[in-house]
Formats: sequence, structure tokens, C-alpha cells
Amino acid sequence: MSVDPVLARIDSDLPNSLDRLLELLRIPSISTDPAFKKNCDQAADWLVADLQSMGIDASKRETQGHPMVVGHSDGPGPHLLFYGHYDVQPVDPLSLWHRDPFDPEIQDTPKGKVIRGRGAADDKGQLMTFLEACRAWKAEHGTLPCKITFFFEGEEESGSPSLIPFLKANADELKTDIALICDTGLFDSRVPAIVTMLRGMLQEEITITGPDKDLHSGMFGGAAINPIRVLSHIIAALHDENGRITVPGFYDDVPDLPDDMMAQWENLGFDHKAFLAEVGLDTLAGEAGRSALEMLWSRPTCEVNGIGGGYQGDGFKTVLPSTASAKISFRLVGQQDPHVIRDRFREMVSAMLPPDCTIDFISHGASPASVMSVDNPAFDKARAALSDEWPDPAAFVGSGGSIPVAGYFQSILGTESMLIGFGKDDDQIHSPNEKYDVDSFHKGTRSWARILAALTQG
Amino acid sequence: MSVDPVLARIDSDLPNSLDRLLELLRIPSISTDPAFKKNCDQAADWLVADLQSMGIDASKRETQGHPMVVGHSDGPGPHLLFYGHYDVQPVDPLSLWHRDPFDPEIQDTPKGKVIRGRGAADDKGQLMTFLEACRAWKAEHGTLPCKITFFFEGEEESGSPSLIPFLKANADELKTDIALICDTGLFDSRVPAIVTMLRGMLQEEITITGPDKDLHSGMFGGAAINPIRVLSHIIAALHDENGRITVPGFYDDVPDLPDDMMAQWENLGFDHKAFLAEVGLDTLAGEAGRSALEMLWSRPTCEVNGIGGGYQGDGFKTVLPSTASAKISFRLVGQQDPHVIRDRFREMVSAMLPPDCTIDFISHGASPASVMSVDNPAFDKARAALSDEWPDPAAFVGSGGSIPVAGYFQSILGTESMLIGFGKDDDQIHSPNEKYDVDSFHKGTRSWARILAALTQG
Repeated sequence: MSVDPVLARIDSDLPNSLDRLLELLRIPSISTDPAFKKNCDQAADWLVADLQSMGIDASKRETQGHPMVVGHSDGPGPHLLFYGHYDVQPVDPLSLWHRDPFDPEIQDTPKGKVIRGRGAADDKGQLMTFLEACRAWKAEHGTLPCKITFFFEGEEESGSPSLIPFLKANADELKTDIALICDTGLFDSRVPAIVTMLRGMLQEEITITGPDKDLHSGMFGGAAINPIRVLSHIIAALHDENGRITVPGFYDDVPDLPDDMMAQWENLGFDHKAFLAEVGLDTLAGEAGRSALEMLWSRPTCEVNGIGGGYQGDGFKTVLPSTASAKISFRLVGQQDPHVIRDRFREMVSAMLPPDCTIDFISHGASPASVMSVDNPAFDKARAALSDEWPDPAAFVGSGGSIPVAGYFQSILGTESMLIGFGKDDDQIHSPNEKYDVDSFHKGTRSWARILAALTQG
Repeated sequence: MSVDPVLARIDSDLPNSLDRLLELLRIPSISTDPAFKKNCDQAADWLVADLQSMGIDASKRETQGHPMVVGHSDGPGPHLLFYGHYDVQPVDPLSLWHRDPFDPEIQDTPKGKVIRGRGAADDKGQLMTFLEACRAWKAEHGTLPCKITFFFEGEEESGSPSLIPFLKANADELKTDIALICDTGLFDSRVPAIVTMLRGMLQEEITITGPDKDLHSGMFGGAAINPIRVLSHIIAALHDENGRITVPGFYDDVPDLPDDMMAQWENLGFDHKAFLAEVGLDTLAGEAGRSALEMLWSRPTCEVNGIGGGYQGDGFKTVLPSTASAKISFRLVGQQDPHVIRDRFREMVSAMLPPDCTIDFISHGASPASVMSVDNPAFDKARAALSDEWPDPAAFVGSGGSIPVAGYFQSILGTESMLIGFGKDDDQIHSPNEKYDVDSFHKGTRSWARILAALTQG
């Protein structure tokens, strides 16, 4: 089964492939917001129907949260699992979008054609690259080149609460020789990448309560504790003057980067000034003495993702609020145990509370970092296949984002993952005006065809 | 003209007086929110009609913002100005209200009957005590006991932007022998109070901008500056470990409290534990070494009234936001110049910005503190009249709240103000479930009848 006619069909079928993606992008499957529960269901149904249209035995599988989609296709050779997620991030602030986030379109831009809309890059556009490669392969050869299990979840953007139970309950069904995960990016527009190091994540929400009701700041201000001030003190104390995180023992299980990996990363010639300039910045803001790629790929972080308290509307209200809240996330690396870090964080923060204040914690997820074992020959085969498609050879890289599913595949299924994706730094995922380059989509689809050929025929 | 039949009529007319107040409370005149502009207008119309129904020559006077209401009534003796405001605070968080804030009702509570609804105490209920006293006086004697100018504004809760221009443009019309302002409280349920010291206020909104768009905290976290963290540092730095405000030169123009005033306040036997216990607190949180009454009446403060940035919805979003904002207010005393303090605050905060961050300031008002000259014999007459109505003698007190109009009456009209009101600490003004005791309303109305008698016949 030659890959060449498959590549030709991918090229000629591109307009139809884009139409199918736009259809999926029109479904507002925001998993973190209960108001969109039906739409998540709808996106799962759409994927089941699409897999079935290719003759794949697919079904929607209910969970406590949003459903999983699982499909099986028989074939010769090795057994692959392909993973993507059909849920998307919320769209606020909506006012910053130039068009309805769920009315996607193909746009001409100075940098080329893009698919604009929520989920275009994260992860519906990426997910569809693999489906389109399979569709073309099947259309050309009447069958897929190997046995493939398709596995799509709908809770990736909301902490994947159903993922571990589902993997445990269906481990026999989902266990394969290797997993392919399409939720990462290119190193740059010339260099494709296979991610071999993923940061873990701990997501905590804290709410400080002072007075038992909102107060008038004139009648009580100065005498009564203000929870916004308490919260600000706590957040300000989470980093020292060198940008290091102050949670006790936080760096105990953070490994030094191996010299050879450090050397490989330095060779990538990453231009952090250009990277920051894309988002209006100029200066590295993280840990003193670390390079940008270290900060992004191999060092842990602590960020505040949201804060709120008191009056935030137009005008002014002289309220002394009863509560103030923040959403705080830690990116974890190496052997950092998210549950140990969580306990230490909670202890530290609780110890900082002044009299009359209480604190509530809500956990929004905790997953360790994962490091892939690149000894598996599939990694080199995939790297060669990617290098054939793109201008420059593919690289093994780290990733700043947390894709805990790779760790769960390792620990629950015993399956190693290859994380291959075609996103770009300027895709504005999780932000207004998210896009995915048509080039990412097209060459991404072609890349999967080449990888399928390499893994099954090499 | 004896006050006794007026008091008797106030007693017998109480049910009708309450009905009139409920009618006014049903108008959602939230001045700070442009969505309620029409309702502010409606409240002004209601007051004009009510004054006219008493035979007072009243009219609505347009401004750049919400209208003023001015009414004139002829009569013998001294010329008084009465001031109140018809606008109210926003109602959020609406979910904490036990009923619609603008569907007021009289409720039985363990502490007695209350009028429940937004504006019941601040300031519609208080404003109406004076109108009801005038209505009863007029009904009983056919005329008011003296010449009275009624002056109501609709922007008190949103920084009074039209007040100074309006006072300046109409100074001749509004100049009187003394002004009466009803927007303060009792010292406690037995002791009425005349406020002789009022704190000023500076209201600032700051917005920190880092990246030019919201970012993914995995892709950029650790390398890109986070404006929530910058804002938290700034807020944390506004006070030192003794609760003193760190703005340079902040205390330069803060006077020591005169010994005799300090002694008088100590004699009031203020129970700060009970005061704080009403709102679920136990410990004084302000400047070390100061009494509660000092903190509330004669010391400046800095409070954060609102903060917001990033994702605040349900669930979690790993965003690194482009901006974070806070609304910060300073209560000022003595000779502190709000414009000087504003400049120093802005300089201090701007100097704290790390690279790549910008800051925007919005001013929401700036007014100096004011201290009344109690030598005017009206103060002693009013104190005696109040002492006749309430169980214990009236006190001269300070006020934590800022009522800048008293300062403007001094500086623009040359008119001294007596601030007399009947609110209680547990009225929950500016908070959900605001109330005004029926007793405050009833005895407040009776108090004004007695004060009118004392000022005009004494």
C-alpha cells in the first residue's frame, strides 16, 4: 500500500476536508461550562457518525461527565491508538473576538490561509488531521494500513475527570502497541516536533472569606479584614525575588536537564525575543538564570489564571467584600508529586491567613509530568516520516503545556505515546481569535499518512 | 406653631409614610450603572411630584449625568437647606438577596420591624424622614416653620460628578443659613448622633497590561509576565506590617486627634468586639495601636474594593491573562489633599511595574475630609432636640463614610452642615439585604420635626 496516491488524494480532497472541520467547529463544545453539556454530546455524536461513515465500528461511551468516543478498525500489522479531544476552551472575553467563535471560516491573512474559530487548533483541527489521513487511506486502498483504535475525549479542557476511571475500566480494549496523540505543535513553521517531555499540572482554586457579608468600606474599612488584600499577600508570596516558587520543598524532585538534551535544545536556535514579541512582550519574566526553553519545557511554574473579588462592574462601589478567589495552577516536571505539592501549597497558604479569615480549596486536577522513552523504534520512524514532509528535519522537544493523557496511557495502559501535532505559537489557543493554519491542517494530514506508512511498512 | 400635634400626626400617618417610601424604593435608581439611567430619572420625577403635592415649588434640573431635584418653600425665620440622595448602590451579588432588592417590604424580625430593600437606609428611607416631617408640619399648621430649600442628587453612589458644577452654577439659589444632611447613622439604638468629622475619599481604578492578548499558561507561563501577579504585588505593598499605608508622604497632613475629642469618644464606650461580631469578625485588622473609633473616624485607610483578571467562571481555564484590574479607595482625613495623594499613589505604583507592563489609571472621584465648626449654635439646638426624642443624649461623632457634599457646601456655598441620620450599623447598606428599621424611620421623622421646631423657635 503506497503512500503516494494517499497524499495525492489528501491534496485533491482538501476543500472537503476543510468543510468537515468547519462543521465540527460550529458545535460549541465548551466542556468546563455546564451550559454547554448538550453541545459536548453533539460533538461526540458528530465524531461517531464520521467514524462510522468510514466503516469504523464507533460508539459514544457515557461517563459521569461528557462522553468518550471509541472506534475500532481492523487491519494488518501493529495496533495503534489515536487520541484527540473534541471539547474546547471557553471563549471569554467574547468582546475581543472579531467574529462569532463558533461561526468559523477560512480567512486569508498576510501569513497565509487560516481556519478561524474556537477549537480550530485546540484540538478539533488537529484531531481531524488524523481522521482525514485515515479517510484518504481507506478511500485509496479500501482498508487502513494497520489496526487502529480511535479514542476521543470531551473533558480535556476541564481536567479530564472521567479519563482515569474510563481507562481503568476499559484497559483491555484500549491497550495498543503505541499511542499517537495530536494535541501539540510544530517547533516552528519549518521544523516538526515529537514531544518527549510533558509538564504535569496542579490546578487549585482558593477562596478567602473575611466578614460574613459584603461591607461598606467607609463604615468598616480600616477595622475589618479585607479578603482581597489577604489574597494579594498570598499571591505575592508565592514567588521570591528571583522568580522561584516559595512552596516549601517545591524543587525537591525537579531534575537537572541532561547535558545532551540541553545541547540539543540550544541547537534549536530558539529566538525568545521573537517568541515574546508575538504577544507584545520583550523580557523573560521567569526564573532568573534559566533559558526560555528551560522555563517553558523543563522548569516548574506557578501562575495565577484568574482572580476575582468585590465590585468589578462599571463605575465604583465602596464595598469591602466578604470573599476573594483565585485560580492558581502549577506546571510540574520530573518526579514532582502533584498531591505532595498540593498538600504543601495548602499548608503554606493556610499558615499565612490572618485572624478572622478562612480559606476554602477546590481541586481542579492534579497530574504528574511524563517523560517518553524514545528507545522505542517508532520514535525514529515517525521522526523520519515527519522529516520527509516538512522543510527541515523533525526534533524531539519538550512541551510547556500539560497533556496528562500521555502519562495515564503509560501508567494505566502500559502504552508509550508519541505526541505529534502541527499547531503554531501564534494559534491563540485558549485566547480570542484562535486559528489553525490551513498549512498545518493540510501538511498535518499528509504527515499522518506518511507516519502510518512508516510505522506499518518500515 | 407647636411641635406636639405634628408629632401626633407623624405617629398616626406612619402607615401612609411607609407606603410612600416603598413606592420610591421600587424604583431601581442605581446611578453607577448606565443601564439604570431611566430609573434614576424616574426617581427624580417621583420626588418632584411628591414635593409639589406638598405645595413646594419643585423641579427636576438636568445635569451631564443624573438630574438634581430642587424645591423651594417660603416661610418665616431662618433659611435651611435639606440634602439627600435618591440614587442607590448596585445590588450584586444578587444571589445573596433573600428577595428582589427592588420589591421592598416591611418585615418582622427578632429585633423589630424593618423596611427591607435596596436604598431603604441609604438614602431613600433617610431622605423621606425629612419629607414626612415637613408633610406632617404643613398638614398641621398649613405652612412650614421656616424657609426650606430641598436639594436631592442622584449621583452620590457614583462619585457625584455633577455636584460641584451644579453647586457653582446655582450657588446663589442654594446658599442658606445652615444645611441639614440626612445620610449618616445613630451612634447606637439609644444614642443619636451629629457627625462633625467626615473622611474624604480618593477612588482609583488601575489596570495592568502585560501580554497584548490572553495566553495559554502552558505555552507561555514561566516566560511571560502575568499581570495578576504584578497587581497582587502592588496591592500587597500598599500597607506595611503594621497596617500603615506606604504611599510616600501619606501621613504628612494627618492630624492627631485633639485630646478632648479623644476623651469624648472613649466615653462613648464603643464595643468594637460587638461591632465586629455583627459581621462575623473578632479582631481589629487596621493600624496597630489605634482604637476602633480612631480607625473608623479619624484615621485614613486604603482598601481594595474590587479585583478582577483572567478566568473567573466555573471550572478552570489555564489562561495567562493580558490584563488585571483593581478598584482601590483611600479614605482621607484632616488636611490630606486628595489630588496630592493621587499623584503620589500613581507615582509609587508606576515605579513598581516590571518590564513589559503598562498601567492605566481611571479616577472615580477625589474629595477632601471635612470638619464642621460646632460653634454655630444650631449644633447645640439640634443636639438638644435629638436628645428629647431618643433614650440617651445625642453625641457629636466622626464618620467613617465619605459624604463629600458637606465639604462642598462649606467651600462653594459657605454653608455649614449638620449631618444627622438614623441608620444603624447592621443596616447592610451597600450589601445584600439592606434594611432600615421602622423605628429609625419613625423616630427619625419625629426627630426632624423637633429639630425644625428647635431651629426656628428656639
